[in-house]
Amino acid sequence: MPNRYVVIMAGGKGERFWPQSRLKRPKQLLPIVGDAPLLTQTVTRLEGLVPAENILIITNQEQQAAVEEVCPMLPKENIIGEPVGRDTAAAVGLAMVLVAQRDPQATFAMLPADHVIHDAEGFQGILGTAFAAAEKEPVLVTIGIKPEFAATGYGYIHRGDEWANVDGRSVYQVKAFKEKPDAETAARYVESGEYYWNAGMFIWSVAAIDAAFTEFVPELYAALEKIAVALKAGENLDAVLEAQYSSLEKISIDYAVMEKARNVVTMESAFDWDDVGAWPAVARHFPADEAGNVTRGAAMVEGGSGNIVISPDGHLTAIVGADDLIVVRTADATLVCPKSKAQDIKKLVKRISDDEQWKTLT
Amino acid sequence: MPNRYVVIMAGGKGERFWPQSRLKRPKQLLPIVGDAPLLTQTVTRLEGLVPAENILIITNQEQQAAVEEVCPMLPKENIIGEPVGRDTAAAVGLAMVLVAQRDPQATFAMLPADHVIHDAEGFQGILGTAFAAAEKEPVLVTIGIKPEFAATGYGYIHRGDEWANVDGRSVYQVKAFKEKPDAETAARYVESGEYYWNAGMFIWSVAAIDAAFTEFVPELYAALEKIAVALKAGENLDAVLEAQYSSLEKISIDYAVMEKARNVVTMESAFDWDDVGAWPAVARHFPADEAGNVTRGAAMVEGGSGNIVISPDGHLTAIVGADDLIVVRTADATLVCPKSKAQDIKKLVKRISDDEQWKTLT
Repeated sequence: MPNRYVVIMAGGKGERFWPQSRLKRPKQLLPIVGDAPLLTQTVTRLEGLVPAENILIITNQEQQAAVEEVCPMLPKENIIGEPVGRDTAAAVGLAMVLVAQRDPQATFAMLPADHVIHDAEGFQGILGTAFAAAEKEPVLVTIGIKPEFAATGYGYIHRGDEWANVDGRSVYQVKAFKEKPDAETAARYVESGEYYWNAGMFIWSVAAIDAAFTEFVPELYAALEKIAVALKAGENLDAVLEAQYSSLEKISIDYAVMEKARNVVTMESAFDWDDVGAWPAVARHFPADEAGNVTRGAAMVEGGSGNIVISPDGHLTAIVGADDLIVVRTADATLVCPKSKAQDIKKLVKRISDDEQWKTLT
Repeated sequence: MPNRYVVIMAGGKGERFWPQSRLKRPKQLLPIVGDAPLLTQTVTRLEGLVPAENILIITNQEQQAAVEEVCPMLPKENIIGEPVGRDTAAAVGLAMVLVAQRDPQATFAMLPADHVIHDAEGFQGILGTAFAAAEKEPVLVTIGIKPEFAATGYGYIHRGDEWANVDGRSVYQVKAFKEKPDAETAARYVESGEYYWNAGMFIWSVAAIDAAFTEFVPELYAALEKIAVALKAGENLDAVLEAQYSSLEKISIDYAVMEKARNVVTMESAFDWDDVGAWPAVARHFPADEAGNVTRGAAMVEGGSGNIVISPDGHLTAIVGADDLIVVRTADATLVCPKSKAQDIKKLVKRISDDEQWKTLT
C-alpha cells in the first residue's frame, strides 16, 4: 500500500469571529467549538489514519509560530509558512511538491483546518475509502457533504453515475461543480438528491494531481517544478518559497483543476460536518438553556432567548431582555451584534483596522 | 434674615444603573451625567446660595465614607450616616433636629441628591424665592416641575389659587398631592395646566415643619425629641442614632405630612430638571451621532441607531447592526439591554445578589 499523507490548509483570516479572531489568531487557532483550537482538533481527528510524520500543514508565515504551538504533536518541519497567500491551487501544488519529495508513489488528502466534525470514526471511514479509491485508479476524489438544507453559501457537486464500489461504498462520477446558487436553485439541488455541498476536501495520488496540473495549469506547474528542483538540490525550503512563491499564479484549485478535470469522483459523507462560518453557527455546538440561550464562561441572560454570550471568567457579561444577540467579550474588546447581522462584523473589523487608535485589535 | 440651610437626602440604592451603580456606590456617587458625581454636582449647584457649613447630607453608614470623598468641600460633621433606612419622614425629622440645634430660627430646604439640573442660576432663583416664602409665613413650600409630557412615573402636585407673590413670582396654594397616575389621567393633568411633577424638593422653617410633625406624626415627633434631647446633652450623634434611629416610624414625608397639611404652597420651576431614573434617560444629556447613538469612552457603533454605549478606555466595546440598546461596561461587569427593557435591570441585580459566585458585583 502506498504511503498516505494529509495536508491541512490553514490560512484563513477569520475576521467573522472578531473579537476572538485576529489577524495572527484566526478561527482555526481558536477553540471556537470544543476545548482545543479547531486546527488541533483537525489533526487529532486523523489519529490512527495517518502517522503524525505524514501530516503537513500549509499556513502563512505570520501564523506559523502559533500553528506550531497548537500542533506540538507534529514535526516542526511539517509546518510550512507561505511567504504570501497565492490561493488554493498554489497551496495544493506546494503540497504535491512536498509529498512527492518524500514519496512520489504516495496519495494525499487536502483538508481545511477549521471545520467541525464530531464523528471522527465516520470521518476516518470515508477518508480511508477515498484513499483506497485514489490508489485504485488515478482519479481526483472529492468528499460530498449531504446537504441538510438549501444553503446558498456553499458550492455544490453534481453527482453522476456510480464509478465504482470501493470498500462497500459507492463512489460516483462528478458531472459538474456548481458555484453558490440562488435560493431557488439550491432548493432544486437539494430536492433532486443528486447534489452535495463542496467542503473543499480532496484526495488523490501524486501522479493524478501532477497530471492534472500539467494539463490544466502548465505555467503554474512549471513554476512548481522550479521549486521542486531547488528543493531536490538541497536548498532551504523557506528561502526557496521566499524567492519563488510570490510569482505563482493566484487561482483556486476549483477553477484551476476540479471544474475542468474529467476524472473527478465523489463520495457521500457519513459524518456530521459544519464549517462554522460565523458566530451564529457556534450555538449549534453547545448546550442551550430552556430559552435557547448559549452561555459560555461568566455569562448570564435575564429574560431573553436565543442569545449567545461568551465571556471569559472573572468579568460578568449579562443580557437583560434581549433576544438573538451575539455578545462576545475578550480581554481587550467586546462585540454586541444581532445574529441576523453577523455578516456585518467584517465591516466593523475593516473600520477598526483603519482606525489609528484601535487597529491593534485586528 | 434667618439662617438658611440645605439638607441633601442621599440614600438611594440605584440598582437601575448597574453595572456602574453598586450597593456602596449608587447613582448619586457616580458621574452618570457630567464630569462629577451627581451628589457633588448637587452641592456645587448651591454655591453662593448657602455657605458650605450650612449644607448637610443625610446618607447611610455604608455610603458615608464615599460621600465624604466626593464632597470634600463640606465639613465632615455635616455628613450624617443613618444606621438604618427609615424612609423620608425620619430623614426630614433628623434634618429638623440637626438644623434646629444650630439655629431654631432657621429655614431649610430638603433636596434629592441625584437629580440633574444644568441651569444652576435658574435653580438658585427659585430656591431663593422659596426660602423667602418660608420666611414670610410658616408654610411648607414644595417646588413643582412644569411637566414636559404626560409622565406616569411621577407623583403630581395639584396647584390651587395664588397664595402670594414673592420676589415677583407667583406662589400657589396646593389643592392636593396625587400619586403616580395612569396614562389617561396623566394626560388630563398636563392638559389642564394645573399640575406639576413632584420632585421631592421642600423648603420650610424649623418652626413650620416642627408644627406639622407635632400635628400629623406625634409618635415620630416624640422619638425625634428624644434624639434632640440626647444631642443637647452632648451625646455623640452616631451613638444616639445607633441607639434610637431604628425605632423611628418608617413612612414617607409625603404620606406623613405633605398630603395632610393645609399650609402647603408650591412654585413653578424655572429650570431644567431630570431625575435620570434609568439608563435610557442618560442619553438626553450627551451629544449623539447622526444615527442617534451616544458613545462614551472606547465605544463604537457600526450600522445601528439609538444606542447608548459606555466603555471605559482601554477596551473597545462595539455594536454591529443593533438599534436602541444600552451597553455599559465596567472593570468587572458588562450589561447589554434594550432601552425598552431597562426596568428589568433590577431583576438581574436581584439574581446576581442571590448568586454566590457574583453577589460581590451588587
